Amino acid sequence: MSVHAWIQAAPGVWKFAAGSPPEAAPLSVIGRRPLLEALEEMGNAAFPLEESRIRIHAGPKRSTAVFPLAEDERIYGFGLQFMKVNQRGRTRYLRVNSDPKQDTGETHAPVPFYVSSRGYGVLVNSSRIVTVCCGSVVRMDSGMEDRARDRNSDRGWKATPVSDTVEWVVPGEGIEIYVFSGPAVMDVVRRYNLFSGGGVLPPRWGLGFWHRVPKSFSAEETLAEALEFRKHEVPCDVIGLEPGWHSKSYPVTYEWNRRLFPDPAQFAARMEEAGFKVNLWEHPYVSPDAEIYRELKPLSGSHTVWHGLAPDYTLPEAREIYMTQHLKEHVSIGISGYKLDECDGSELTRNSWMFPAHAEFPSGLDGEQMRQIYGLLFQKMADDMYRLRNRRTYGLVRASNANASSLPSVLYSDLYDHRQFVRALCNASFSGLLWTPEVRKAKDAEEWVRRIQVVCFSPLAMINAWADGTKPWSFPEVEPIVRKYIRLRMRLMPYFYTAFARYKFEGVPPVRAMQLESNLRKKDSGGDELNSTELAYGRAVDLELDDQFMVGDSLLVAPLFAGESLREVYLPDGVWYGLETGERYEGGGRIRVEADLDIIPVFVRDGAILPLMPALAHAPRAGEQVPLELVHFGTAPGAYRLYDDDGETFAYENGEYEWRTAEVRIAGEGALEGTIQDSRDGFHATYGPITWKIGVTALPAEGRK
Amino acid sequence: MSVHAWIQAAPGVWKFAAGSPPEAAPLSVIGRRPLLEALEEMGNAAFPLEESRIRIHAGPKRSTAVFPLAEDERIYGFGLQFMKVNQRGRTRYLRVNSDPKQDTGETHAPVPFYVSSRGYGVLVNSSRIVTVCCGSVVRMDSGMEDRARDRNSDRGWKATPVSDTVEWVVPGEGIEIYVFSGPAVMDVVRRYNLFSGGGVLPPRWGLGFWHRVPKSFSAEETLAEALEFRKHEVPCDVIGLEPGWHSKSYPVTYEWNRRLFPDPAQFAARMEEAGFKVNLWEHPYVSPDAEIYRELKPLSGSHTVWHGLAPDYTLPEAREIYMTQHLKEHVSIGISGYKLDECDGSELTRNSWMFPAHAEFPSGLDGEQMRQIYGLLFQKMADDMYRLRNRRTYGLVRASNANASSLPSVLYSDLYDHRQFVRALCNASFSGLLWTPEVRKAKDAEEWVRRIQVVCFSPLAMINAWADGTKPWSFPEVEPIVRKYIRLRMRLMPYFYTAFARYKFEGVPPVRAMQLESNLRKKDSGGDELNSTELAYGRAVDLELDDQFMVGDSLLVAPLFAGESLREVYLPDGVWYGLETGERYEGGGRIRVEADLDIIPVFVRDGAILPLMPALAHAPRAGEQVPLELVHFGTAPGAYRLYDDDGETFAYENGEYEWRTAEVRIAGEGALEGTIQDSRDGFHATYGPITWKIGVTALPAEGRK
Repeated sequence: MSVHAWIQAAPGVWKFAAGSPPEAAPLSVIGRRPLLEALEEMGNAAFPLEESRIRIHAGPKRSTAVFPLAEDERIYGFGLQFMKVNQRGRTRYLRVNSDPKQDTGETHAPVPFYVSSRGYGVLVNSSRIVTVCCGSVVRMDSGMEDRARDRNSDRGWKATPVSDTVEWVVPGEGIEIYVFSGPAVMDVVRRYNLFSGGGVLPPRWGLGFWHRVPKSFSAEETLAEALEFRKHEVPCDVIGLEPGWHSKSYPVTYEWNRRLFPDPAQFAARMEEAGFKVNLWEHPYVSPDAEIYRELKPLSGSHTVWHGLAPDYTLPEAREIYMTQHLKEHVSIGISGYKLDECDGSELTRNSWMFPAHAEFPSGLDGEQMRQIYGLLFQKMADDMYRLRNRRTYGLVRASNANASSLPSVLYSDLYDHRQFVRALCNASFSGLLWTPEVRKAKDAEEWVRRIQVVCFSPLAMINAWADGTKPWSFPEVEPIVRKYIRLRMRLMPYFYTAFARYKFEGVPPVRAMQLESNLRKKDSGGDELNSTELAYGRAVDLELDDQFMVGDSLLVAPLFAGESLREVYLPDGVWYGLETGERYEGGGRIRVEADLDIIPVFVRDGAILPLMPALAHAPRAGEQVPLELVHFGTAPGAYRLYDDDGETFAYENGEYEWRTAEVRIAGEGALEGTIQDSRDGFHATYGPITWKIGVTALPAEGRK
Repeated sequence: MSVHAWIQAAPGVWKFAAGSPPEAAPLSVIGRRPLLEALEEMGNAAFPLEESRIRIHAGPKRSTAVFPLAEDERIYGFGLQFMKVNQRGRTRYLRVNSDPKQDTGETHAPVPFYVSSRGYGVLVNSSRIVTVCCGSVVRMDSGMEDRARDRNSDRGWKATPVSDTVEWVVPGEGIEIYVFSGPAVMDVVRRYNLFSGGGVLPPRWGLGFWHRVPKSFSAEETLAEALEFRKHEVPCDVIGLEPGWHSKSYPVTYEWNRRLFPDPAQFAARMEEAGFKVNLWEHPYVSPDAEIYRELKPLSGSHTVWHGLAPDYTLPEAREIYMTQHLKEHVSIGISGYKLDECDGSELTRNSWMFPAHAEFPSGLDGEQMRQIYGLLFQKMADDMYRLRNRRTYGLVRASNANASSLPSVLYSDLYDHRQFVRALCNASFSGLLWTPEVRKAKDAEEWVRRIQVVCFSPLAMINAWADGTKPWSFPEVEPIVRKYIRLRMRLMPYFYTAFARYKFEGVPPVRAMQLESNLRKKDSGGDELNSTELAYGRAVDLELDDQFMVGDSLLVAPLFAGESLREVYLPDGVWYGLETGERYEGGGRIRVEADLDIIPVFVRDGAILPLMPALAHAPRAGEQVPLELVHFGTAPGAYRLYDDDGETFAYENGEYEWRTAEVRIAGEGALEGTIQDSRDGFHATYGPITWKIGVTALPAEGRK
């Protein structure tokens, strides 16, 4: 393959295509334009690899792409992975699967994209199951036969020998492949997100607290449970309804159960009045009892799921039917979004239920392809519907794929242990995905608190208690702790909202893996320091740093898991403070931290400025104004850019937003002084009045009570 | 598809082919002719299905075949399955895999063949990964939408709805499919085995006891350990050497380690003299240090395994190199056969090591195909080599596929719990496979005994203690029990040998699932009795009968697992006796049986005749004669056909064998009298003198001590 075969697709992004182009792949399904301006601002980096060492072959049955892999290289990404951070040494079989019990690469959102620790990324745009041998196989032409060892006599023998290639395998006749430049790992991820249209900017209320009611709750029961949050002074923005709101479910009708919800519009209005958005559970399979069944039947796949249709939503006419029904029955009365269940599928193990890979769809796609992109199709329809109404949505989905950064959905599932949930939170950030660690039933108050603490620092803070009815006050002995963190989530809303704005405009993931931090990377490329002590990065990498993560630029979250009160935390270079304890730490290595149940260890950088608002019952509505406190930590000067817009519409896409720089500088006499840019004329700022707190070491307690 | 598209391939066997014919599929790899005479003897049954209800489609990417499935139909087979007997309701992904942790259909020997409880079988001849949706998906054109239920309100809702089809999916452009007639389940399996060339008839010594020595044993250590068996009066026929006999292993050289084995020919001769056959461990991957490496390199795949070659043994020139080397270095000095490890492969999980599916081989096959048939290719080479010398071999292999009935190998692996081992013993019998439940280290004496008891009733009775050095006398407190069962295995050699002869000539599996017994089937199709009581077959089928099995026609083995002393056993119609206890049972239902550690519950039919020989140190050699006792059980008359041949060569394929009918009839006065046909003139009979024991209820104890 010659050098000029790589075409620049955007600044710092290169494309190679061979054979027949992929049908209905993620990029075309989502159809989002790259944020070219932002990519240009990042600069036009050079092609990050030696082109002659990339070998691409488009065959009749499958295409392959062989990339070089250095001995010290680590590989991150591939979507929502639960078992490891560094994927090197494994073959990743990127099939959408709701029940990935083994570490095969299968998951709800298997993204054919990886980021190398050497500062480049590779994406394959395909609706098929892509396999990636991530340094897990050795080619004969690698000429490594001198590395053969005798297992009987040589202790250095390894089951999986070190390999010098990453090999992509794409079924079908063509391959479309993209390379993203660095030089930093974060640069690669930012380019990926910007190329995907930038990250999603949720409505402000989406960053409040969410709660789901049991599956057969009526309108009255739902409203009553919602109001309990107000009584308990626990903020709540969104109430989710579960299957029982459908007249029939599994398969679903998308029509209201009139026994439980005699007047859906009135229900939605009463909820809105009380400050709650309503989110609706659904899944893709259309009941024979649904009004749209007959119309959708000829537009559906050859196989049913629970005797419901699996519609072919690559067809505009099928999308039209779904969207018309949803707009009329839900969106128009104020429903805020959806939780899309079971679009991932399980087929090889017990209780299988998905349409098979060989199912045929009217568009010509087969079941393999439809399953890989089904989650994307629904996310896109939700986004399209709400854009029609100039209202942002934010919801949940159980399957996703590549280039989904801009789609307004957070992945969820309940199958994992708490450490896996946290590891997935880290891994999701490499591939433009958001993930909420599930909180439902807990075996005791300790586990309950530990799960709540983590979810309050995630992209979507929700209790998903449709099956067991757990509420924030279900364990009365720890209710104050739970309340504190849900209120902290609300106080941090300006901080979260700004972090998501950076996701949108700059491609920086709001919640992210430590491996994306540049002051880690620096050490890695250094000389003597590497591996020189237990606290150096060498060990940090070995341990994979899969149990701590960054929220925005200033907060580092290091959860404790049930049963623990002590853990190690890796702190990047610089000085850090315990967010609640005020304890001072020197970064650049590992520290040990102890915390009782009422504290989740969170660390804030010296010089950080956190924008805090009061712990309101729910997010401010467009046009409302809330007081803001800018809290500066420690002794170093610092700066922070605060984002603001109406929080609900797409006006920000037409420039209706602003960034205001807040700065803490050394004034005369060496004292620190904080200033913030004025809001621009005519812009309706959400925050006001703005006050400062300078040089604190711990988060100020709430003023209440 | 029109009716006449099915062509009769043999009596009771039909073939359908569409698209381009499969490359290097199991039938052509093995190249064995069907045993037409035996198939003709079974009669020319009609096509067992309504042909118009079978829909076959050969597409460009994949071919599909849709078969009807009745509501009460059960599906057995698909090779070495560990999790269930009835495969209905599951999608089976028939990939060769060494580490099948989930119930996906993947296994060491995934055979694209199933037998229906309705008395027909379906086989796909393919070297690709075939997927079978066994009543696990529902087609839109099934018109079953009236079965949709509401999960919220209907307790009858099921995650996997009942389906009316079995759907085969074969990757690639063509499909070759066979249908086998019944009417009984056993008839289907017999036709499958006879179509595959008949079952394997091992050398007599293959049915003796086997032991493997630790991996770095020298010639002297091996001989010394072998002679321990004689001292302990534990019969032993075969000693297996593990990786250390190679000059290098992982990858292997196939050359002797001259430090441990300075004179391999002398070692083999001394072993032979002491009455031991030697079996050699090997795997497919050729070390750069092997003499044949350079010759094989251009005939090998694009990817290495442990830096060793993966040769393309579909090429005659590659087979020639392998066979020439093996014949010269091993076979010619008396080595009896091989244990072929790691021809199955692991690639998606930890410690992966297989060449990938996209590997390219000089013949044009890819890695997916090569992996599916790799085990078959080696089994075939072993068979070919020993046929050249007119010596039968019997060995072990870790991967197999369809139509392997005639190949002289038994599957093995160590990854399973004891119940899974036993379940696989049952399942293997549906698909022409043999399996040995692994015995190595045990956590205590009880487990040790329970495992030894089962393996002594399996197709290959072996301790595989290469890693831990366990021996039959390792738990001295139970040595007498272990000795008793290994000696019983030897006493039953004429019975086992005859059972294998029926496998060879009639296709009847020697060790088999209860579902193959006709007197079970009778009840199933019956009227009132079905489900009429807890003990009826209705329940038996539900419980799957996956923990008891038949050995030959007369013995029913119902193992106890460690921790148990009591179990339920399903006994088919008729009267049965506890083989060692003499207790009498009425069959046709479930009984409870209790047994101490010194007994494995085995049941013998009323009227059965068991041929017993003395518990010799090892199997008789060709030309030797051993006394035989014909033991008749109970009060019913009975008949038995005893098989005999030289036990070592292929002379039996030219008619050098005989069947002698032994009969127990009611003589005058109502007494029972036993007679056996004379051996034919000029035939060298193995058994003599022959004595009778009539009307016993329990196995006579050994005469010794």
